[in-house]
Amino acid sequence: LVSVLSSAIIVYRLPWTWKCSKLLMKFIHAGLNTIAMILAIVSMVAVFEYHNARNIPNMYSLHSWIGLAAVIFYSLQLFLGFAVFLLPFAPVPLRAALMPIHVYLGLTIFATVIATALMGITEKLIFSLKNPTYSASPPEATLVNCLGLLLVIFGALILWMASRPHWKRPPEENAKVLRPIGETPEGTEAESTMTGGSNADKSDLRINSEAARKQNLKLDEAGQRSTM
Amino acid sequence: LVSVLSSAIIVYRLPWTWKCSKLLMKFIHAGLNTIAMILAIVSMVAVFEYHNARNIPNMYSLHSWIGLAAVIFYSLQLFLGFAVFLLPFAPVPLRAALMPIHVYLGLTIFATVIATALMGITEKLIFSLKNPTYSASPPEATLVNCLGLLLVIFGALILWMASRPHWKRPPEENAKVLRPIGETPEGTEAESTMTGGSNADKSDLRINSEAARKQNLKLDEAGQRSTM
Repeated sequence: LVSVLSSAIIVYRLPWTWKCSKLLMKFIHAGLNTIAMILAIVSMVAVFEYHNARNIPNMYSLHSWIGLAAVIFYSLQLFLGFAVFLLPFAPVPLRAALMPIHVYLGLTIFATVIATALMGITEKLIFSLKNPTYSASPPEATLVNCLGLLLVIFGALILWMASRPHWKRPPEENAKVLRPIGETPEGTEAESTMTGGSNADKSDLRINSEAARKQNLKLDEAGQRSTM
Repeated sequence: LVSVLSSAIIVYRLPWTWKCSKLLMKFIHAGLNTIAMILAIVSMVAVFEYHNARNIPNMYSLHSWIGLAAVIFYSLQLFLGFAVFLLPFAPVPLRAALMPIHVYLGLTIFATVIATALMGITEKLIFSLKNPTYSASPPEATLVNCLGLLLVIFGALILWMASRPHWKRPPEENAKVLRPIGETPEGTEAESTMTGGSNADKSDLRINSEAARKQNLKLDEAGQRSTM
């Protein structure tokens, strides 16, 4: 689940995918997140059935509360992402306004899922290790602690990749290339809207005589994401 | 501890502090982090003494491993921040290069501390609630679960505040005002270095005829932080 989530997060961050069409990448991002959602639901059903079979109460622990909250927000995020960014109906300003929220919510849910996993590991180690107990540090405990530590390192790396401006997919160039000169390139429009940039800012960008790649770099640095 | 850490994180994000000098704000940021570090050390000593008094082994749990890792990285971060950003010796390009790492590491440590707290709460509830047990959901369990959930919400809010570009302290203006016209304003220099911006980028910024506030906004949007 965490690995599928991670792939979904960093799928735009792989430079070799920048050649692929944005729509294809969006489908991959949405597809991976849908797989992660299905895995999350399957594992929740498994937990409830395991609890019921062993007469263990459901939803009593902090792990379960935060996990459920994460899944609820995740399904909201998936639904909103699908409706706004994948379907072609949402206008560009709406996409631009929601993109920072989509990114923040995605990364926060990811961090919360890792925290939930760590709580789950802690519970499992306490409940399962009886003779010797968890506190006697049997090899299983050390092994699973190492796995938990690796999970934190892995999550931190994913968050690093997802937050570096120069690993961001450059905005679409064809939006500019295919459009008659003088017409507003929609990508730029959206990005200026997103930052609340003035018209002067926009013309700054438009009269810039440098190549598209340089403009992309500037927009990249502006911490923006292409919304088209 | 979490509240002192949070104040240290968002201290540059309070618009009413933008009038105060950058050095004063840095001292407050460093001071709050030092207080948080002292609290972390005091609480760790308390845990070890409690364990020793009750003959409970130390450092066996995932909670303790990840907590110790967080404290180690936190002390590194504190030392590095002090040496590079507070003492006046580090050159501007070094400050500019290390600032994104400082910010990322700070926020990641913050998230890790919250995850550690959640694991600690989970452990404590399991070990302390015996009759009725945690799984019977006594009122204490529900109360502490709610507190844990609030901790996650609180952490998410802090991360939201810390990642919004328009809540970032604008770069110092006096660096530009006090300097003879034509000389490179160091703030801008640093920020261009940080993004690997070309010379053309820099002159783009410099020939911009708009007011300083607008330039600040552009730099703000560029996801940069003032390093002086």
